Amino acid sequence: MELLNKHVTIRKFKDQEVDQKLLESIIYSGTRASTTGNMQLYSVVITRKEEMKAQLAPLHFNQPVAKNAPVLLTIVADFNRFSKWCTASNAEPGYDNLLSFTTALIDALLFAQNICVAAENAGLGICYLGTTTYNAGEIIELLNLPKRTFPVTTIALGYPAENPELTDRIPLKGIIHEESYQDYSNDDISGLYRFKEGLESSRKFVAENAKETLAQVFTDVRYKKADNEFFSAKILEVLKQQGFLK
Amino acid sequence: MELLNKHVTIRKFKDQEVDQKLLESIIYSGTRASTTGNMQLYSVVITRKEEMKAQLAPLHFNQPVAKNAPVLLTIVADFNRFSKWCTASNAEPGYDNLLSFTTALIDALLFAQNICVAAENAGLGICYLGTTTYNAGEIIELLNLPKRTFPVTTIALGYPAENPELTDRIPLKGIIHEESYQDYSNDDISGLYRFKEGLESSRKFVAENAKETLAQVFTDVRYKKADNEFFSAKILEVLKQQGFLK
Repeated sequence: MELLNKHVTIRKFKDQEVDQKLLESIIYSGTRASTTGNMQLYSVVITRKEEMKAQLAPLHFNQPVAKNAPVLLTIVADFNRFSKWCTASNAEPGYDNLLSFTTALIDALLFAQNICVAAENAGLGICYLGTTTYNAGEIIELLNLPKRTFPVTTIALGYPAENPELTDRIPLKGIIHEESYQDYSNDDISGLYRFKEGLESSRKFVAENAKETLAQVFTDVRYKKADNEFFSAKILEVLKQQGFLK
Repeated sequence: MELLNKHVTIRKFKDQEVDQKLLESIIYSGTRASTTGNMQLYSVVITRKEEMKAQLAPLHFNQPVAKNAPVLLTIVADFNRFSKWCTASNAEPGYDNLLSFTTALIDALLFAQNICVAAENAGLGICYLGTTTYNAGEIIELLNLPKRTFPVTTIALGYPAENPELTDRIPLKGIIHEESYQDYSNDDISGLYRFKEGLESSRKFVAENAKETLAQVFTDVRYKKADNEFFSAKILEVLKQQGFLK
């Protein structure tokens, strides 16, 4: 499917606003994604104002795209609205737990990906900000997210001002398991990652970071164990604070 | 975007196989979705064999669709493959934690939704099985999923043998928040859910279950607090067992 197959992440945008009606039609396409029991366990916070972007940017580790995109969409896993409906309907909501959190996370991410597909179909470019979960607590405070919600990811959106090449993927056979999971031998692994390791951009990455292997750039620079553990502890606290873990 | 906007869940399928090449091209479109740091933190287990479906079906609470669909795709959040690559590359993976779990969950769900969009574009119908997280531990055992993986959701796939109507959604304004989250008043809630409550199908649902309100069907029948808490405890155990929570 060409629209999906040509997807690239856009980090540079034209100085051109995204029309509100267009944005709403894109979000509407998001709501047409499958949702658990038709509960629609998501919300989206639209950020356009410069002062809000200036406050969000550091929570996204000052990635330029967080400040430069005309629109940021913070995608929120939301069991608040549904629980309020229950309470207002003489029903007792029981959604302050981990299962409900993962369910809302699933709903929110299907919603998010449909938004991205619809946005690209309308000529916009997108960039996911994976940093959202890292500073979920601070984002909750800034955007006034109530209990029983959690910001899952953020989509930066605008008209593309760059035309990057398709990024590499490992061979499809490395992703697919027939009938049951076939764990990977060292030979499998080296076959699957050989192309990626051989790329000019990967070699540059290794050299720039003075590492021996591409994987070390991930483990020692980009996604470090100590950082992962630090932010994991924060997420655990936020889940408790938001009422998803007792 | 018409393809997204006309999505309906399909639970009845023609007795017609899904060609393997077509399935692979659909999964390939899945892999073109955004992925954190291009780590591709997902795998998919394809189930076609009747004996595997017969073992999976009870784990999906014997939903007929789990047995009747020609193909089931179990979508797996996977930090195993990437960690094996690290180890094989003289790098120490640090992905046995909650942040890494949520990151892989995000990757896996964007992958899943692209698969569904591509499948529908090819004339197939899909049904998500939200039951996957409920019995994640049993599915892990059955499909031989290793540590550092977690089954997130399952997509039942085949050629549609039914043509259901579009399901309702709450008004878009109930999903969208401008600049910050505007929490819902009781009036907001009753406005947002009035249409859903008034549907013929909703009234039937309430009557059949001998309840007073539609919300009570959710809280007392479909998604009960006691069940949610029971399965939350199971998920917590599985996260520990899979090495995502210490």
